[in-house]
Amino acid sequence: MAELLSGKDFWSTHASADIRSLVLTDGPHGVRRQAEGADHLGIMDSLPATCFPTGAATACSFDTGLLEEIGRALGEECRTLGVDVLLGPGINIKRSPLGGRNFEYFSEDPLLAGALGAAWVRGVQGTGVGTSLKHFAVNNQETARMSISAEVDERTLRELYLAAFEIVVTQAQPTTVMSSYNAINGVFSSENHRLLTGILREEWGFDGLVVSDWGAVKDRVEALRAGLDLDMPGNDGASTQAIVDAVHEGRLDREAVEIGVERLRRLAQRITATPKADFDIEAHHALARRAAAESMVLLHNDGVLPLEAGTHVAVIGEFAIHPQFQGSGSSRVNPTRVDTPLEALRTALGADNVSFAPGYGTSANTDLLSEAVATARAAEVAVVFVGLDTSEQSEGFDRTDLRLPADQIALIRAVAEVRPVVVVLSNGGVVTMEEWHDQASAILETWTAGQGAGMAVADILTGAVNPSGRLAETIPLALEDTPSFLNFPGEHDVTRYGEGVFVGYRYYSTLGRPVRYPFGYGLSYTTFDRSLQVTVTGPDTALARVTVTNTGERTGSDVVQVYVAPAPSAVRRPVRELAGFTKVHLGPGESTTVELPLERRRFAHWDVNSNGWLVDPGRYAVELGISADQIIAAKEIELEGDTAPIPALTLESSVKDWFEHPVVGPLLQEAMTAGATPEQLAAAEENAHLLQMVETMPMAQFAQFPGVNLSGDTLNRLAARSTE
Amino acid sequence: MAELLSGKDFWSTHASADIRSLVLTDGPHGVRRQAEGADHLGIMDSLPATCFPTGAATACSFDTGLLEEIGRALGEECRTLGVDVLLGPGINIKRSPLGGRNFEYFSEDPLLAGALGAAWVRGVQGTGVGTSLKHFAVNNQETARMSISAEVDERTLRELYLAAFEIVVTQAQPTTVMSSYNAINGVFSSENHRLLTGILREEWGFDGLVVSDWGAVKDRVEALRAGLDLDMPGNDGASTQAIVDAVHEGRLDREAVEIGVERLRRLAQRITATPKADFDIEAHHALARRAAAESMVLLHNDGVLPLEAGTHVAVIGEFAIHPQFQGSGSSRVNPTRVDTPLEALRTALGADNVSFAPGYGTSANTDLLSEAVATARAAEVAVVFVGLDTSEQSEGFDRTDLRLPADQIALIRAVAEVRPVVVVLSNGGVVTMEEWHDQASAILETWTAGQGAGMAVADILTGAVNPSGRLAETIPLALEDTPSFLNFPGEHDVTRYGEGVFVGYRYYSTLGRPVRYPFGYGLSYTTFDRSLQVTVTGPDTALARVTVTNTGERTGSDVVQVYVAPAPSAVRRPVRELAGFTKVHLGPGESTTVELPLERRRFAHWDVNSNGWLVDPGRYAVELGISADQIIAAKEIELEGDTAPIPALTLESSVKDWFEHPVVGPLLQEAMTAGATPEQLAAAEENAHLLQMVETMPMAQFAQFPGVNLSGDTLNRLAARSTE
Repeated sequence: MAELLSGKDFWSTHASADIRSLVLTDGPHGVRRQAEGADHLGIMDSLPATCFPTGAATACSFDTGLLEEIGRALGEECRTLGVDVLLGPGINIKRSPLGGRNFEYFSEDPLLAGALGAAWVRGVQGTGVGTSLKHFAVNNQETARMSISAEVDERTLRELYLAAFEIVVTQAQPTTVMSSYNAINGVFSSENHRLLTGILREEWGFDGLVVSDWGAVKDRVEALRAGLDLDMPGNDGASTQAIVDAVHEGRLDREAVEIGVERLRRLAQRITATPKADFDIEAHHALARRAAAESMVLLHNDGVLPLEAGTHVAVIGEFAIHPQFQGSGSSRVNPTRVDTPLEALRTALGADNVSFAPGYGTSANTDLLSEAVATARAAEVAVVFVGLDTSEQSEGFDRTDLRLPADQIALIRAVAEVRPVVVVLSNGGVVTMEEWHDQASAILETWTAGQGAGMAVADILTGAVNPSGRLAETIPLALEDTPSFLNFPGEHDVTRYGEGVFVGYRYYSTLGRPVRYPFGYGLSYTTFDRSLQVTVTGPDTALARVTVTNTGERTGSDVVQVYVAPAPSAVRRPVRELAGFTKVHLGPGESTTVELPLERRRFAHWDVNSNGWLVDPGRYAVELGISADQIIAAKEIELEGDTAPIPALTLESSVKDWFEHPVVGPLLQEAMTAGATPEQLAAAEENAHLLQMVETMPMAQFAQFPGVNLSGDTLNRLAARSTE
Repeated sequence: MAELLSGKDFWSTHASADIRSLVLTDGPHGVRRQAEGADHLGIMDSLPATCFPTGAATACSFDTGLLEEIGRALGEECRTLGVDVLLGPGINIKRSPLGGRNFEYFSEDPLLAGALGAAWVRGVQGTGVGTSLKHFAVNNQETARMSISAEVDERTLRELYLAAFEIVVTQAQPTTVMSSYNAINGVFSSENHRLLTGILREEWGFDGLVVSDWGAVKDRVEALRAGLDLDMPGNDGASTQAIVDAVHEGRLDREAVEIGVERLRRLAQRITATPKADFDIEAHHALARRAAAESMVLLHNDGVLPLEAGTHVAVIGEFAIHPQFQGSGSSRVNPTRVDTPLEALRTALGADNVSFAPGYGTSANTDLLSEAVATARAAEVAVVFVGLDTSEQSEGFDRTDLRLPADQIALIRAVAEVRPVVVVLSNGGVVTMEEWHDQASAILETWTAGQGAGMAVADILTGAVNPSGRLAETIPLALEDTPSFLNFPGEHDVTRYGEGVFVGYRYYSTLGRPVRYPFGYGLSYTTFDRSLQVTVTGPDTALARVTVTNTGERTGSDVVQVYVAPAPSAVRRPVRELAGFTKVHLGPGESTTVELPLERRRFAHWDVNSNGWLVDPGRYAVELGISADQIIAAKEIELEGDTAPIPALTLESSVKDWFEHPVVGPLLQEAMTAGATPEQLAAAEENAHLLQMVETMPMAQFAQFPGVNLSGDTLNRLAARSTE
């Protein structure tokens, strides 16, 4: 039995008489089914599969339907490639734009990441294939990822870093959850009973299997005790032996092994996918292209876009012929085919209208810059493809800078001297723009947009598709502005989450600090009118009704974003948080009304005193935004909220609690002044504000101050009355 | 014996056959010797004593000699007023400009706070009177001060929050140290054995007595065990009983009581001050005035200052007749006399040349603003006195805003419309200036400058004294810019020190974030030339030689500020830190050379691995600044630093440590490729960078990966060679 709880090899589990062997394979934006024995680390060549846009891209679609569709296609490919569990979605919060794996993750916002992750799980699991929600939890950096401890307070943990996982688990029941490499407050995730059992299973009701990230288990017995069922990859029986020894020596309950095996059995039963000879390569490629176009974010446009038919365009940049459409590491897919932007634009605009110069790149033999400028000068508009090389954005290390490479910056600036420049960015993590932003006539952020990126870029640039992506993460002005700048990636195996819940737009909006482009931002070729109605639907729940009208002349999609601005609270809350979103698709003149239910949780914060979610009573604003920084309508609502019971007083209660108690306060005042001289009474009156100096002192100490005149008997008598 | 370890009443200790009763009384900028029975909380009327400038002011003198002189005068007053121990200095770091007690504290920089505190202690103790270094430790806010836990990492604790205490203890041996109200990482200071015994006594060699802040002891027995000797104030024998019970019940070692009593005995012996009938009120007042003038910081001057003789000046502002020269709470002194700015300016400039209007204040009967504008219009220059009321800056609560009151802002703006305005600020904590800064012709920051502030302001405004104060804390552009903004003052009794060591100028300079006026900044009426030489004087020590020449036409003082910019480090360090300072006084044309030794510690950071101070090998810059943001000369030096020994390898060591080990690394490489096929070798070569993905994985896990091909025997054999 113990043997079943570790891998047989890198990618598969052991079989028993009644449990079949399962194949688990990397995702999440494509299936990386590896040929046998390709390399030691299991990273290299894999069988061809569709490379969909990565999470950083698809998140900007704000489209759960699209994510579900991608999930279904991935599930189909798993059936063909013999994969039982696809390792995804990756939903960790983008704490810093430097995060090496940000290209795989969705967002800086947990509601968005959670909703998209849940949709992806529904899609994959709808085909009978399993998923693995990862990396659980607080795995927000690659630096020292196997030794680092994320030091994070409970409220931040709950509101930011666990919230997306909670959404996916409770809404989509993924078949497995993958424990992360890192530690949380000193306890490694894979040995973290509170995380893997207390929160995941007992609080959220997860009933699937917990699998380790590959090589994340340090102490197999402790991990099993914590609730980690399956240790991957295989290790030649070492884990099995450790478990067997521990059971024999009485250090581990046999039942823990049985539970793990039972979960593996149930997993195998849940995976109902049947093998299929092949998948529809063309249809999946078309989906990859459509998803890419839905995800691209038009950041700036002085009117040069969409490109008019017949325009002579200079396509510039090595990335136009060698597109950078994914990142490196375990998620790297061997694509079935790759569209290049240059070919796509030649197809769309006519080959005669499109010239090309690489501008930068590996060839150091020619003066690439001069050539590019000359090429641009001979055209009407230059489209410059820049961004990050696949090797610069990877699992295993974080970035250290947010700028584009110097040669690319020089290229943009030089070309912009002679012709209007459309900058097309492909990068899995955010880049800053200080050096070249103001020289660009238009900027299109395509992220790492998968194998269909080339055609999708052409679709957007020519207006065949209306841009409808919205930023799922803030683009800051500079690295130094980012909330975790001084604390990321930590030192000596500790990374302090000093910014608390103030991550991404929660930080910038609350401080009123300017950014390059805010969360939720994105332009369109058409225009929309939007209006908001809000009704309170129950105790601490509401419904936002948003009507959107396409007032322009093109068909297009708009993202409805509803935020909640909190009532005054005992804790420091962001000025607003995303509370609901959806995407609508409208022809010219069309109008639609969508309803976004705002459940209790959208108004709540994590209360460390009660160890639960608390809604403060008071006035909240429900806001309709076209980004986190641009609120175009807002309605105030009054919520009853949770009223904390008046606590029973003890000698450890503070002076303030005693004086403010509705029953005891006046009696206390009376007791303290009993027998005082008129002069003392007058002095007490005059110096009432001095009590503020000791208000957080426990009554036990205050009562003993010389002259305070409160006996233990008096206090005990009064305390007894506090529960009346 | 146990009775001796608690107060007899609010301000004195019990006597025994051979230990006399001692009187302990509030400081630190004046003696607050209270008449008997004045009020319950022991806060109100006290006997007249000189109110010197508060710490926020005197710190800006950057003058240790001045602090020692003030200390001596305070000691003399203690002799007259029957005080054995004066409760000061208060040297907590100004983490946030909102701190209610910032007016009592010196600086945001621990070197400056420590050096000034040590000088003050030397001064007081030179008269035979005792001192009490406070509030030990990490007491950086008033909000919830008796229940809050300061959550701070060890490096920040050592480099920022303990460093000033360490300087005072090791350099000046204060007779007592006062434990603070708050908790540090969950353990209250008064019950914190590591703090009161491990660090204070065992590491720093403190041999005096630890006294509680008044009412800070929650568990008397635990506190005594931790090293807290004297519990103040008295509590009618409750503490005594607790100690006696604990000894009888075997919960407390009798020796702990004996040690406490012995320390009390030694304290009484160390205090050798003899009673004195009176002190020199006039001389002390003159010192208060001189200290105030030395501490004022001229922030801005378009040439309007110094005021020329015969200028007709409109003095505007209630504070010119009711000066706000100290804060509220336990430090509040009943001054022997108070100079008012209006009278002082009338004396200095001639009564006929000085008119007055209150501008704002309690009287609501007249149109104060119009009257002020009319008064200004009738004069040549307006001097507007604004700032914070004494009641707004106090022990017991923090400020919530950094702006001046709205009526004062309106006043400055209205008067500036008609006449050049000199703004004279009196405020114990920093104020921001956005609304009025650009309207002012000159700005003089006087802080809470004690009872001689009035004459001192006149001295500076008329040029009788050349301004030489330099900012001991940054003046930010806005509250939102301050490093602890989102974490201060915390919530639910926890305040997270999320900004780490990046407090004050360490934050702004490192981020390159603009401020209103930087740390170390201050103008003068004369001009100085400054030059820097640096020599390495030993292993990791250096000497800075700074030559200063007064190139102007007035006698004046200059503050020499030397900073160190660190070598590259495994930890995130501020771009520069203050490493030495001194004040020089020069007549016109005079020149002097000062030597500032830079000891090893000035280059070191706290290393959590070795639990000690570590100097990184490499290039450091020694910088001469006229503020933390204006470096006018710099010299690079190469330090050998501490070289960490190459650690012995274990199976828990990281993959990176194994591969980088000078002996084992190559052997490991060899072992891993033994028996590989040529194809496998080629693949391994090509994918060498993939190792980065697992570099922080413990070797034990990595070795078990399928195909890695490292047996336990091999690893044990290699590990054995790592210590060769």
